This record gives sequence, C-alpha cells and structure tokens, in this order.
Amino acid sequence: MRTLLLAVVLCVSLASKAQMQSLPSLMPLPAKMQMGSGRLVIDPSFTVAITGHKEARLDRAVEIFLSQLRQQTGMPPIVMKGTNSANATLVVQCAGGTKDVQELGEDESYRLEISGSGARLSAPNTLGVMRGLQTFLQLVATTNAGFAVPAISIEDSPRFPWRGLMIDSGRHFIPVEVIKRNLDGMAAVKLNVFHWHLSENQGFRVESKVFPKLQEMGSDGLFYTQDEIRGVIAYARERGIRVVPEFDMPGHSTAWFVGYPELASGPGPYEIERKWGVFDPAMDPTREETYKFLDKFIGEMAGLFPDPFFHIGGDEVNGKQWDANPKIQAFMHAHGLKDNNDLQAYFNQRVQKIVSKHGKTMMGWDEILRPDLPNSIMIQSWRGPDSLAQAAKQGYRGLLSSGYYIDLMWPAARHYENEPMSGNAAQLTPEEQKRILGGEACMWSEYVSAENIDSRVWPRTAAIAERLWSPQDVRDLNSMYQRLDQVSRRLDWLGLTHNSSYVPMLRRIAGTDDISALKTLTDVLETVKDYTREETAPAPATSASPLNRVVDAVRPESATARHFAASVDELVTGPLRPGTESQVKVLLGRWRDNQAELQPLFEKSSLLDEIAPISRDLSALGAAGLTALDYFDRGEKAPAAWATEQLALIESAKKARAQLLIMVAPSVEKLVQASAGQAVSSSLPAK
Amino acid sequence: MRTLLLAVVLCVSLASKAQMQSLPSLMPLPAKMQMGSGRLVIDPSFTVAITGHKEARLDRAVEIFLSQLRQQTGMPPIVMKGTNSANATLVVQCAGGTKDVQELGEDESYRLEISGSGARLSAPNTLGVMRGLQTFLQLVATTNAGFAVPAISIEDSPRFPWRGLMIDSGRHFIPVEVIKRNLDGMAAVKLNVFHWHLSENQGFRVESKVFPKLQEMGSDGLFYTQDEIRGVIAYARERGIRVVPEFDMPGHSTAWFVGYPELASGPGPYEIERKWGVFDPAMDPTREETYKFLDKFIGEMAGLFPDPFFHIGGDEVNGKQWDANPKIQAFMHAHGLKDNNDLQAYFNQRVQKIVSKHGKTMMGWDEILRPDLPNSIMIQSWRGPDSLAQAAKQGYRGLLSSGYYIDLMWPAARHYENEPMSGNAAQLTPEEQKRILGGEACMWSEYVSAENIDSRVWPRTAAIAERLWSPQDVRDLNSMYQRLDQVSRRLDWLGLTHNSSYVPMLRRIAGTDDISALKTLTDVLETVKDYTREETAPAPATSASPLNRVVDAVRPESATARHFAASVDELVTGPLRPGTESQVKVLLGRWRDNQAELQPLFEKSSLLDEIAPISRDLSALGAAGLTALDYFDRGEKAPAAWATEQLALIESAKKARAQLLIMVAPSVEKLVQASAGQAVSSSLPAK
Repeated sequence: MRTLLLAVVLCVSLASKAQMQSLPSLMPLPAKMQMGSGRLVIDPSFTVAITGHKEARLDRAVEIFLSQLRQQTGMPPIVMKGTNSANATLVVQCAGGTKDVQELGEDESYRLEISGSGARLSAPNTLGVMRGLQTFLQLVATTNAGFAVPAISIEDSPRFPWRGLMIDSGRHFIPVEVIKRNLDGMAAVKLNVFHWHLSENQGFRVESKVFPKLQEMGSDGLFYTQDEIRGVIAYARERGIRVVPEFDMPGHSTAWFVGYPELASGPGPYEIERKWGVFDPAMDPTREETYKFLDKFIGEMAGLFPDPFFHIGGDEVNGKQWDANPKIQAFMHAHGLKDNNDLQAYFNQRVQKIVSKHGKTMMGWDEILRPDLPNSIMIQSWRGPDSLAQAAKQGYRGLLSSGYYIDLMWPAARHYENEPMSGNAAQLTPEEQKRILGGEACMWSEYVSAENIDSRVWPRTAAIAERLWSPQDVRDLNSMYQRLDQVSRRLDWLGLTHNSSYVPMLRRIAGTDDISALKTLTDVLETVKDYTREETAPAPATSASPLNRVVDAVRPESATARHFAASVDELVTGPLRPGTESQVKVLLGRWRDNQAELQPLFEKSSLLDEIAPISRDLSALGAAGLTALDYFDRGEKAPAAWATEQLALIESAKKARAQLLIMVAPSVEKLVQASAGQAVSSSLPAK
Repeated sequence: MRTLLLAVVLCVSLASKAQMQSLPSLMPLPAKMQMGSGRLVIDPSFTVAITGHKEARLDRAVEIFLSQLRQQTGMPPIVMKGTNSANATLVVQCAGGTKDVQELGEDESYRLEISGSGARLSAPNTLGVMRGLQTFLQLVATTNAGFAVPAISIEDSPRFPWRGLMIDSGRHFIPVEVIKRNLDGMAAVKLNVFHWHLSENQGFRVESKVFPKLQEMGSDGLFYTQDEIRGVIAYARERGIRVVPEFDMPGHSTAWFVGYPELASGPGPYEIERKWGVFDPAMDPTREETYKFLDKFIGEMAGLFPDPFFHIGGDEVNGKQWDANPKIQAFMHAHGLKDNNDLQAYFNQRVQKIVSKHGKTMMGWDEILRPDLPNSIMIQSWRGPDSLAQAAKQGYRGLLSSGYYIDLMWPAARHYENEPMSGNAAQLTPEEQKRILGGEACMWSEYVSAENIDSRVWPRTAAIAERLWSPQDVRDLNSMYQRLDQVSRRLDWLGLTHNSSYVPMLRRIAGTDDISALKTLTDVLETVKDYTREETAPAPATSASPLNRVVDAVRPESATARHFAASVDELVTGPLRPGTESQVKVLLGRWRDNQAELQPLFEKSSLLDEIAPISRDLSALGAAGLTALDYFDRGEKAPAAWATEQLALIESAKKARAQLLIMVAPSVEKLVQASAGQAVSSSLPAK
C-alpha cells in the first residue's frame, strides 16, 4: 500500500500544472488509487443500481448521493434510481448490513472502479458505500465532454476509526440547520464522529424533561428540543456519523445552577455566565443528592443519545468553590482526599459508575485520567501526543485534539502536520498504538455565531480529516492546499457558508455594496492566533458582544498571503517563473493605492474605524515592496538607511491591531532585506 | 396625501447623489413620509416593548423582526424583547387583534415615528405592525455612528388589498425551504398573498389522503405532505401572508390521470407529461363520477387550506379530447351546449357549487368568466386591464396578472409601469374600480429549479410590490432602480439566493473558480424574453432537461447593460458628467479583450460551447465602440463604409443565440451611429 501511495504523492509533487489539473482533487486521499484512461460522462441518463444487501439506510445513502450529484451538476430533480444492474451507470454492490447504532470500528472500506462505460462501487457494508459515494462525488468535474468522472481504480479504508468534529453549542448557541450542514461537510470528507458540546457556563442547550429548569433557566431560550436532537442524530446516521454528547462536569457548569443552585458547591443564586474564561462554580461532589440528580439526568440523556460513548468533560475545575466550602473540606478530610484533584477523581469514579450503569462508556478530557478509573474509559487529549501515549501505556484508549483546536485560527498546514502518532506515541508497541483511536477537530465557540462558524470550521477541517483517514505518509503540503481549494468549493454545494458569508459580512461593515477596496485589505488579513484575541481585547468580550467586526469576517487563513509568500520566495531564492515578478508588482501596487480607495468607506462606517491604521500600514508595505523591486530591477543595492527605515515600519505593521494581522508583512520584509543585501528572515507576524 | 408624496418623489429626482444616499431606501415607498433630523442608534442594548392588544401572532412577529434585525446587524443572539415600555428603544402599540384566518381587506396600515431617542410603531392590528416592522428593517443602515435608523415620520397603508406572488410548483417541484425563504422575501416587500399553483400536467404536488394515487403516481415522489403544507401556511400567517391554493382543472391535469384515468375524457393509460405546452388531456365534464371525485377532493383540500379563496385554474383547454369523445359530444347535444366553451362553462358552474358548498369562494383565470357564474367568483387576468375592467363592469372582482408574468424575463421597469388601473380600468366608476383588488406576480416554472428560481423572482417582484402598495403616482424609474438595488441586498439576509447563486452556477459551467472573464460576458447578457426560449430551443426542453446552462445562470435583467446604456445616452445626448467617457472606455476595452481571456475556459468546458459566438460578438462590439469613441475624440466623423460594416455586425450581435441576448449591443449601435453622424436608433435587442 505504501509504495503505490508514495508514487502518487511524488507524481503530484513533480507534475506540471497541466498534469496536476488532470489528477482528481480527492480529500482525504485514498489509501490506494490508480488512474485509468478515459472518463465516464454524467448526463441526465445517469442511473444507480443497488445490488446485494438491502437496508433502508443504504437506499437513503444513495438518495442523498443523487441529491448531491444533482446539486453539483444542475441535473434535473427526477429520481434517478434504477434497480436493473445491467444497465446502471453506477452499480453499488453492498455485501452486508450495519449496526442499528453505529459502532466505533465498523468497517468503512470500499473499492471504486470507474471505466469509460460504467462504475462499480463495492463495500462490505453501507458505511463503506457512503464513503465511496463521497469519493465519487469528489471525482465529478466539468470537462470538454460535459460532466464526467475519470477512469480510476480506488481501494480505500481509514487509518483511524475515530475521526471527529466537536462543535461547542454552549458558549454560542448554534442552530440545528447549521449543525446539519456541518454534518454534510463532515460526511463529504469522511469524518465519522460529531462530538456535541452541549453545556457550558454560558448555556445549557438540551431540553431535559426530567429537569426542565436546566434549559428553561439556563439557556436564554436557546436550546435544542429532544425532537430536534433526535432529528440531528438521524441526519448524522444517514451520513455514517455517530453523535457523542458532552455534558461538562463538575466545572463549566454555571448554567446548570441557575435552575438548580443546590447542585453547586457555593451559595447561589446563579446567573448565566456572560463572560469567557474559567469560573469558580463547580458541582458539589460531596453531596449524595448531586449523584441522584446526575443518575436521573444521565439516564435521560443516555436514552436520548444512542451512541455508546458519553462525554463528561471534566476539564478546568479551578477548585475555588471547593476550597471555600467548609462542608466540602470536612468531607475531604474524612475521606482522605488530600487535594482537589483527589476530590475530582472521587467525583469521576462516582460518575463513571452512573454512566456505566446506563450502558455507556465514559469519556473526558485529559484531566479525568487517573489510575483509579477503569481501562474502559476514553481520554480526549488537549495536551498532546505524549499525554496520549502515556494513557495508552496505562491501557487507556485515547483521541488527539491537541493541535486540532480550530478556534485557535492556525493555518491548515499546522493542523495537517499534527500527527497523532508523533513524539512518544511513535515509540508505543503496536498493541498500545491501537489504543490511539484517532482525533477530533474542536470548534470552541467564544467568537463564532451561526453566521461565521462555517468559515472557522471549513475548509481547514478537511485537512484534519485527511490526516486521520489517509496513510501517515500522505503529507505533501502543496498537494494538500491545492486539493483543499477544490474541496472548499465543493462544500459550497452542500450549503456551507464558509465562502459565501464573507462578502455579505464585509458589505454590512462597510454599509455599501462597493467593497472592492475593503476586500483588497481584508484578503491579506488574518485573525490573531491562539488566545491572543482574548488577551488583546480592549474590553472583555462577552456572549452578548456583537460578532460583526472585521475580525469576525476575515478568514483564519489568507490564501492571498500564502500565494504572495510563495511568489516572493521565488523572487528572493528562485527559480523564478515568467510572470511572477509582474504579478507581485500588481499586488504591491494595489496595496499601495488601497488606502486612498478605502478612504470614502472610512467616512461612512464607524465599524471600520479600528482598521484605519492597518490600512495605512498595508499601503506603506505596498510602497516599500515596490521600491525594493525597483532596486532589484535597476540592479542596485537598496541604501541601508532606507532599508532600516522600512524594516522598522514593517516591524510595526507586523503587530496585531484590532485583533488582526497583516499576513503579507513578512514577505515584504524579505523583499526589503533582499534588496538591501541583508540575510532574509523567516519570521511570522507577531501574535 | 398626494401633495406630500409628490414632494418626496420630486426630491428623489432632483437630489444630488449625496442627498439621495441619505434618503432611506424604502420599497415599497410609504404613502406619506417626512424625514426628521438625527438618527436612532441600534446597538446590543436595543429593546422592543409591546403595548396594547396581546396575541401570540404579535409576539411572533416581533420575534421574527428581532431575528432579522440580528442578521442585518450581526447583533448577538440573545433575546432582546422587553416589556417595560418606558425604557424600550422601539415601542410597538397594537390596538387590536387579527382574524383567525387572515382575510382579504384586513387593515394593514401603520404609523412609524422615529426620533433620536426612540421609535414608536402604532397600528390598528398585528398586520399593520408586521408591515411597519419591515419598514423599520429597511431603514437600518451602517453609519459613522454604527448601525442606525434615521429620524422619520411615516404614515402608511396599501393601495390594493391583494398583492400576491404565484409560484408554480407543478412544472418543477419547488422544495418547502425555497417556498419559505420566498415568503420571507414577500413579507419584506409587504406582499400579502402566496398563490400556490399545485397541480399541472407535469406533476401533482400535494398529498391527498383521500386519493393517494394523485401524488403517488403523479409526482415522481416530489410532493408536499399535508404536514408540510400546514407548516407553510403557518409560516405565511406569521408573516401576514394568505395562502391560496390552485388546482388547475379541467385542463392542465394530466398528472391527475396517471393514478385516476377515469377522470379523463380520453382513454388511458396516462403518464406524467414531460414536455411543456398545452396538451389534450382534460377532465370529463359529462360524467357524474367526475363531480363526486372533485367533491371529495375539494372537500379535503378545503380543510387543508384555510383561506376562503380556492383557485380552480380553468385555463387553456384545447378541447381535443372532448371533440374526440362521442359520449361527450352526445352529452353536449343533449344539453344544448353548442361548443367547448359552453361545456367548460357547464363544468365551472358545477365546480363552483362544489367549491361554494365547502365554504370557499372560487377563483380562476380569465377563461372562467361567463355571466352564468355568480358575482362572488373572482377573476385573475392574464389578458390585461381591459379584460379586468370588463369583468368589473359585470360585477366581478378581479386581479391583474397580465404584465406581471416574471417568467417572461422582462426588466423591472416594464413590470413597474404595468398599472392595474390603466386602459379601460381608468374609466370605471369608483364602485367598479373597487372590484379591482390588486395583482399577482406569476412565476411559471418551466425553466426554474430550486437553484435559480429566486433569481427570477427577485428583485423584480419588489418593483411589482411597490406598484401594488404605493400610491399610483409613485413611478420614478430612477428612484425605483436605486431602491431596488438596496432591497435586493437586504433580501440576501433572508437567505434568498437571487444574488448568491450566480457565481457558483458560473463556476460549475466553467469547471473552475477563475470565472472573471466568463462573468464579464454574462454580466451583459440577459435571457431571451417572452416565450422565445421555447420558440428558439434547438430541441424541445422537458422537465428532465438540466437547468445548468448559461441561460439558466444569467439574470433576467443586466444591471451592467442598464448602467452602460445610461452612460452612452449621456455621451450621445449629454449633459456629460466628468468620468463617464473614461468609464465607458474601460468597459469597451474589457469587452474587446474578453474573448482572448475566455479562450482557456472554452477549451475546458463543453457547457460553454454554445456561447462562443456570443463572446466573439461582444469583443467585436467592444472594438467597434472604442473606434467610434476615437472618432469622437479626434473630432472626426466616422467613414460611412466603416459605420455600415459595424452596424451590420451589431445587427447580427443583437440576435438571440443560445437563448441569450447581448444587452449592450443597442448602446454600441448608438455610439457607432452618432460617430458617423447618423440618427441614433432606440431599438431593443431582437427577440
């Protein structure tokens, strides 16, 4: 398997542009593929036949496939399902059924054979069919013979059995239709676990019929009804995705206490938390009533969510309420619990028994890992592969989420290079390695709303999906980015708004349709990284802060800056392709002139005030870059004094303002350095 | 009322550009408005209080308003509803309730007073509140103080009580979510009737529990369940919109006969019709079983659709099945029915009694108007105001739809100038004029799918909405177009895809993201008008034809061509503003060079083949226009031979190809004529 795949990757790396365009833009890349010759045309006579095993889920999978194929091609909405396998364009051969409740580790493999005369998709079960149908959809392209898929032979199966996306509906409520379109996105890139973070200090988001004050008093009316939850689970199942609920405890639980203050370790009353951060309120682990409540609650939720895993969070308890409560202190003393870690471990043991009693396997964040919990529990690591390796050595199964926190606004490449089997994990025995089940992209929601969440999840999560599905040695960054661009466009057809929300948000900020100058600026900006947005906020943001600023509209990763950086590297270190220098000049000139173009908008909209200095800096960067190129062109070395002045200006332009970064500043720095004969730095913008 | 309004319109016509931008972009324009000074800032502290009458529909109207305000501003998703009127930003004063089933003619008036310190909306009932809240939303703008509404005083009520949009779900099925977003669009421009065309030769689209073979055999599985219908009706009611169902009979009914061939006048079996046009199958008006069936069916539907009006279609029976059926001929002879018109009148009388028995008022297209039907029925006219006036004289109520067929792809101006009270209608007595209740935009669906229907409905339907709501003397076309552009962008926030579907469809056609050259071309194209698409199709289109061609993506009205025509008129007839000539030259230059830019795409996608000659012609037009301007600039008269050659070329470029028109051809013609000292023609592109 490895040999063929290396050949493919090599081919991608070395291929000319024309050849690259003829390679299919699959993401995740299959374990094995072999291009054939010719193509299969897709026109309104396209039919699908299902042979072999029959189940409703399989029929539905084909229906969804046809509906997506219709969207991608604009084909007519007539049902295109045939059953006569001899004549069908695509024959689906399904050998067996799937479990009533989708299980961790169910077979997802498939084979897809496409020739000029027809296609055959075979799989051991419906899950494999689903994955193969998504591969087929990614192969559909507009060609000079109309829509077509290339002749190809694919044999595919995932590297890891747990490939997830977590969405935090607690901090900001995320409406059901947004969840559903993200499930479509997950299915498109073969993710199979939707981890739903459903309770937080800022909101309790599920209807409980047993404890209705949870949602009535803890959600501002923004919660999912049980019918809606069931709808989401059914929707996910139709796409081969499990739904794992998380109810964070004993911390991150202020919203529970608004309706049920008796659960808390400190005196009430409580209000829904509006600020972001780690807060004092925590459940009281010393009262039996707490466990009676949790028994009933977990029992109710275990019935609502069919998945065998139940996530209890367990992270970030600061212990202040415990320290301040004499009864809790007395309890700890009486039970020989020497610190708050011991107390939380006691709580986890009790909760684990409850979860287990209701037929579920408990999972939680790193903090829950203590040898006094049984090996059956599962650890989700925000600490990293070493922490995961340590757990695996102790016999615990685990998932990697460290390095996959998409709210930190890293570039796709950084997530892509984050390898679950790296560090100490690489040294594990095969037996131990099997305990590392995969990973999850995590979308924490302090700064996302229904409007911009898609742009934080996609397309970067597709790169994480490839890391978790494709063989470990699939890691060419250029190939990844090229395919990511294609996948991003395909996701548009599923209704995801990661591309489409950008311009309307800019128009709202500017108060006009004519935003070309604003877009010239925002196209080279990125949001600050890591937790810098929190750290640099002029006033603390809350859940009531409008998410309508420039920082809420710009993308986590600037494609313009990435391409510009590559062009500048060509200029500085070669080999230089024809046209690159003139492209660079066009961009620099546009940036230099952009401040003047933007001026009328600044006068119209106060929402632009905060980016005025950034705009001025971009113009200065454009001018500096052009002057540097002039020196190149004239074969002169730029004067040291000029370079020093420009580099000071660039240093200042690299600083975050309005929680935004000018991502082309480091490339302009290289141009200036090179023009002055200085060593070229490779610094990134300051955080 | 008239005096103030004239003053406002005058102000729009004479205002400088800066002043125009400060006028609110309301559509439809209110009956009376008076700008104040200052503005009311809208920030997250915004609250609404409801005082006076209480009803759930009112609370829901305010909820919907807040949700739309949040979308328009990016405000946080916290419920912003206050009840303390003293402190609220917007006080809603509602004097009374609305009917359980919304009635024709219920009061929709409102007053809206906005000052720098607060806003007050008062109305006699919830319907008026809904209309006023939409006005408020249209007033919200991005300003140099953040989001704000201007100080203003508005007193408003509609001119006509029936302002509708008809959507044909029969020829192409239109999914529920598309219907719902169009209801949002209707509410935004104060339309109040959704006329739902639910059965056609090509599909029967409603679940009947009494006669399930209607949808099971007549819809390809594409129909609305009764639950979905109820959902749409409830959704419409929350927006102050009535839902009037249409089941077309006795013609346009092939889809009924697939399951129930005994209803037809000719021998079966029948299949769902795939082609477009007028077909032979018609119900048998001579069999009592037909009326027994219709009695049960209409009874079922009368229960499902609460509106008092029930539309039976009644149009376009070609009579061939009746002529060919000896039993029907014998019946006609026996009953003294001298022709097929008499036979259809007999059918209508029978159906009218059934509709009336089930508590409904019958309505139908022009053809049903015969003196033997009672005055209570209502006529929807596709023939025009004279036909409507004739009906009104005979005591019948009527609606205008002639001139509002938006599937004919006319420019907004043409619909806007279509006046229900024109022609003979203007001569009616006030009593008779009252019988003309309004009008309906009609979206027949031969060439629309869920993907592009919004772009055929919007924004042009907003112009029709203004014709039906605003005073008759509101008719300035420049003002209309300026406000239409604004309304079009506001409709984006409601999820309508009239703007957003364009680029993805072009990308699909081109098979690449880089469609700037394709868009340069398609921005100046329009679809052919009237029924030319049908008449010029190389092969007859069917309901199975893909709607993924260039003609399916381009807009009914080219804004680029409209603006270009205005600039050319300035050049040719003056007065010329600075900058106009250079703008015209930039466009002409871009068009001239565009064929070369587009060439690589032609090689990639066969979906572009059919527009290759159009692209070549646009380049030729660009070159011709530039040469004409060169003659101007040099103060020379263009040689007659050159002009003759160019005019022949332009004449050819004006011809429809691929069912598309180059809308800038007539303007280039003017430039060439003027440069050669010829009289300038004002011809439109050929059909």
